Amino acid sequence: MPADNIAAPAPTSGTGRKTEMPLVRPPAVRGGEHPFVCSSDNNRLIAYEHRVKGAFHAIEPCLRDISALRHDADFVNKAQRLVREQLGFELPEALLDDSWIEGLDIGRLHSWCTFETYRRMSEDFYVKGPLAGGEDAFQAFIEECGFHLIDVTPCADGRLAHVISYVLRLPYGPVRRRSYAGALFDVEDSLEKWVKTELQRHHELTPNAADQPTRYLKVAVYHFSTARPDQEGCAAHGNDTAKAAAAARERLNAFREGVENTYCCGASIDLLLIGLDTDNDSIRVHLPDAEGRMDIEHSISASELFEASLQARGCEPLEWIAEYVRGEQQRGGRSVPADGMVRFVSRLLLGNLSQIDYVRRFHNGMYGDLGHQESFIGTGIGFEEIQLRNLTYFAYLKTVEEGAADLDVGIRIFSGLNVARGLPVPVVIRFDYHGSVPGARERAEERCRRLDRALRERFASLVADCKLHTLLMVRDVVADSAADTIECSALPQRAEMH
Amino acid sequence: MPADNIAAPAPTSGTGRKTEMPLVRPPAVRGGEHPFVCSSDNNRLIAYEHRVKGAFHAIEPCLRDISALRHDADFVNKAQRLVREQLGFELPEALLDDSWIEGLDIGRLHSWCTFETYRRMSEDFYVKGPLAGGEDAFQAFIEECGFHLIDVTPCADGRLAHVISYVLRLPYGPVRRRSYAGALFDVEDSLEKWVKTELQRHHELTPNAADQPTRYLKVAVYHFSTARPDQEGCAAHGNDTAKAAAAARERLNAFREGVENTYCCGASIDLLLIGLDTDNDSIRVHLPDAEGRMDIEHSISASELFEASLQARGCEPLEWIAEYVRGEQQRGGRSVPADGMVRFVSRLLLGNLSQIDYVRRFHNGMYGDLGHQESFIGTGIGFEEIQLRNLTYFAYLKTVEEGAADLDVGIRIFSGLNVARGLPVPVVIRFDYHGSVPGARERAEERCRRLDRALRERFASLVADCKLHTLLMVRDVVADSAADTIECSALPQRAEMH
Repeated sequence: MPADNIAAPAPTSGTGRKTEMPLVRPPAVRGGEHPFVCSSDNNRLIAYEHRVKGAFHAIEPCLRDISALRHDADFVNKAQRLVREQLGFELPEALLDDSWIEGLDIGRLHSWCTFETYRRMSEDFYVKGPLAGGEDAFQAFIEECGFHLIDVTPCADGRLAHVISYVLRLPYGPVRRRSYAGALFDVEDSLEKWVKTELQRHHELTPNAADQPTRYLKVAVYHFSTARPDQEGCAAHGNDTAKAAAAARERLNAFREGVENTYCCGASIDLLLIGLDTDNDSIRVHLPDAEGRMDIEHSISASELFEASLQARGCEPLEWIAEYVRGEQQRGGRSVPADGMVRFVSRLLLGNLSQIDYVRRFHNGMYGDLGHQESFIGTGIGFEEIQLRNLTYFAYLKTVEEGAADLDVGIRIFSGLNVARGLPVPVVIRFDYHGSVPGARERAEERCRRLDRALRERFASLVADCKLHTLLMVRDVVADSAADTIECSALPQRAEMH
Repeated sequence: MPADNIAAPAPTSGTGRKTEMPLVRPPAVRGGEHPFVCSSDNNRLIAYEHRVKGAFHAIEPCLRDISALRHDADFVNKAQRLVREQLGFELPEALLDDSWIEGLDIGRLHSWCTFETYRRMSEDFYVKGPLAGGEDAFQAFIEECGFHLIDVTPCADGRLAHVISYVLRLPYGPVRRRSYAGALFDVEDSLEKWVKTELQRHHELTPNAADQPTRYLKVAVYHFSTARPDQEGCAAHGNDTAKAAAAARERLNAFREGVENTYCCGASIDLLLIGLDTDNDSIRVHLPDAEGRMDIEHSISASELFEASLQARGCEPLEWIAEYVRGEQQRGGRSVPADGMVRFVSRLLLGNLSQIDYVRRFHNGMYGDLGHQESFIGTGIGFEEIQLRNLTYFAYLKTVEEGAADLDVGIRIFSGLNVARGLPVPVVIRFDYHGSVPGARERAEERCRRLDRALRERFASLVADCKLHTLLMVRDVVADSAADTIECSALPQRAEMH
C-alpha cells in the first residue's frame, strides 16, 4: 500500500462494536520531531496496520450492504460484485445460492469472511514478508551483546500481539515468541526449547557455535493500563500490575534455576523483565543488576527517556541511551550489568521511542480500543504472522484439557464482542509442524481435528446455536511456506446446512 | 524372599477372574539344563514375581473372608487382624467404622487395598531396589557395542511390562522405556528425548562424551500370540502380527529420518525391531543389515536358538550366539551389520534364553493368563517400578484428550475383569517430575488433578456408580525417591460417602 494512502484507521465504532468513554489524552507531539524516532519505519508500519486491520473492519459494513440487497432479483451477482469491491475476494457460491429459500446466513458469512481475510493476510505475510528485514544485522548485534537467541514471552492478550515487530521493533524471524496468559510461560517447555537451541549450536553451529561465550536471553513482558488500571490491566493477574510483574519475574527465575540445576558445568541463561502500558505502547525495563537480579520497584521508563532525549542532537542514539540507562540504574542505587546487556536494552528502548511516536502520531497518543477488540481467536501452536495489536485473542495450547482456562476467557470476550450481537465466534485452529520429520504433517492435522472436537464439546451450546465456527490450518515451518487450510466449518457441506 | 519359599504362583482362578481353556503346551524342559541359562537370576526373578503378584492376588480372598465376618460382634478388630495377616497392612478405620450402619463397601475396600499394595511395592522398588544391579557393566558393554543409550518402546499392553527386566534381562535403570499402544511411539517426543540425550553428552559428558563415536539405539517391541493368534495378539493392530511389525518398523524409520533431516552433520541413530510371543516370552529379532534395513519376513528366533544351543558346552555364550546370529543372517541372504550390533543383539538373545527357561520352569512353558489379567490401570508419565507381566494396563499420556483411545481400551478391559463382577476399576494417576526445576512438583500435582478431573468426566457413569477409583501420585526422578501420594478417592471423606 503506498504511503499516500495512509489515513486515520477505520474508527472502532464503524465495526459496530462497543465504543469506549473518551479519556484524557497525553499532549500530542508532532511526528518526526524526536531525533531518535525512525519516521520511515513508522510510515511502513502504519500502512501495514491500516491495510490488514482495514480489511477486517470492512467485513461488517460490506455484509450490511449485502443484507440490504437480499431481496433484489439479481442478488447473487450484485452481492459478489460488492464483496469483490469492498473485500477483494468472492464469496463461495454455496453461501449465497439457496439464500432465496433459506434466507441469508449472515453469521456464517461473517465467519467465512473473517477466515478468508485472515487466510489472505497470513499468506501475504509468508509469501511477501511485509514486515521482514534486518534479520542478519540483528543476529550480529545480539551476538556482540553476548546473546545468541532472544526468547520473548509476552502475555497472550491480543493487545501485546505486536510486541516484537512494533513495540520493540525487533525482526520477528530470529526472535522466538511464545505467548502465555499472564506471561506465565511453561518452564518445562522452555527448558526443552533451550536444550534444542544449545544442541543446534553444537551440531549445526547455528545461531552460533557452542564455544562462543554467548547466552540465551529469556524476556517476559507483562502489561498494564495507566488510563484504566482496574479494568484494562492483565486479566490473568486480576488487573494487579505489581502481581503481574512479580509473577513473571518468578517464572523467569524458575527457568534460570531449572537450567542451572539440570545442566551443570556453568550452564545458565540471562533474564529480562519488561512492562508494557497497553494504552500507549510505552515500555518500562527492569534492568538486571550486575548479579542478574531484577527489581520490581525499579525500572527504566521509555516515556521518560522519550522526553529526556527530545533535544539530543548530533550523537549516536544507542550510545546516548546506554549512558542514560547506566545513569538511571545508578540513580536507583543499583549495580550496572554487563555492557552487552546495557547495549541490548538500549536498543529495545530506542525501538520503543519510535513506537511511542507511532501511537502519538497515528493514534492520538492513546489507542481508541483500550480494551479487547479482537477479530478472531487463534489457538494451537504457530501464528507467527500475527504481529498486529488487538487482532487476535491467542490461546497457545496443545489440548483443550490443558488450555481450558485460556479458551474460556477468549470465548467470554467474544461472547461480548460477537455473540451478543448475533454473530458467531470465529476460531482459527492452527498447528505448525516440522516437514522434515516423516508423518509430522499428518500428526499436525490430527491435532487440529482433535482440538476442534474438544472445543466443540466444551462449547456445545454455542455450536448448537451456530455461534462458533472453526478454520483448521497447518503450516510447515521448515519449508517456511504459507499455512494450508484443512477444514472450515463456515463453508457449508450440503448435509450440514439442515 | 528366600529361594526355598518359591512355589507355583497363585493360580489365576484364585483371584475369581475368568480362567481360560487349556492349551497344548510345548514339551517341558527341566530348568537348569540349558548351558546358557542363568538359574540364579531366574530364582531371584520368580521370587520377586511371586511376592508382588501374590500380594495383589491375596486381596480378593482376604476381602471374601472379611465379608463373611461382617456381622460378628468384634468385626473391626477381627477384620484388621485378618488383613494384617494376609495382606501385611491395616485398613483405614474410616473404611470399617460405619460398616454396621451402611454395610461394608467391598468395592471401595478392594480399590483401597489394590492402591495400598501398589504403593508398598512401588516404595519397596525405589527404596530397596529388588531388581537393581549391573548398571555400570551394562553401560560399559553397550558403549563397546557402539551405543550410548538404549531406548525401548514396547507396546503398552500389560503383557509386555516385564520386557526390560525379565524378557530381555536388561537393567531398567540405564535403559529408557516408553510404552505406547501398538509400540507406535510419538516421533516428536522421541526427538526431544534424543536432543536432550545428545546435549547431556556435550555438557555433562554423560552417558559418554559427545566426541565418542557411539549412537543412540531405538528399539521397538511388537507382540503376538502363537497359541491364540486371533484373540491374544496386539489389539492396537487388530491381532495382525505382520501389520504390528510393519507399523513399528515404519515408526522407527520415521524417527531416524527425523533425526537425520533435523540435525545435519551426519547425525543419525540405530534401530532395532523385536517381536515378542506373549504366550512364552520368546523373542524374534529383526536384525538390521549392513545398511540398517530391517526385514519383516526375516528374523532370528530365540526359541530356535534355545534348541540349537542346548548342547553348546565349553564356549563363551556371547561369542557362540554371535556366530549363530551371523550364520542366520547370511542364511537369510542378508548382509551382516557392524560387530557391535551383532554383539548387542546376542546379549538380548542370551538374556531371552533365560526367560524362555523361566517360563518353561515356572509357568509350564506357557502362561496361564494368556489374556489380560491386570490388577490396575496406570496412567500419566512414570511407572518405572512396573517390571512385572500382566500387573498393569498402562496408558502413557499427558491428557485424556490425547490418550482417550488408550484409556477407553483400558476401561473396557477392566469392565470385563472388575466391573462385571461388581468391583470398581482402580486407576493410578502418576506424574514424574524433575525436582531440580522450581515449581515442577506443583505442576506435576496439578497435572494429576487435571487428569483426574478429565478422567471422571469421560467415565462419568462409572463414577456415578462408584465403579472408578483413583490414586494420585507424583515422583521426583532427580531425587530418585519413592512416589508421594497426593490423593486417593477410595479413602472416603465424610462428605463423599453420601
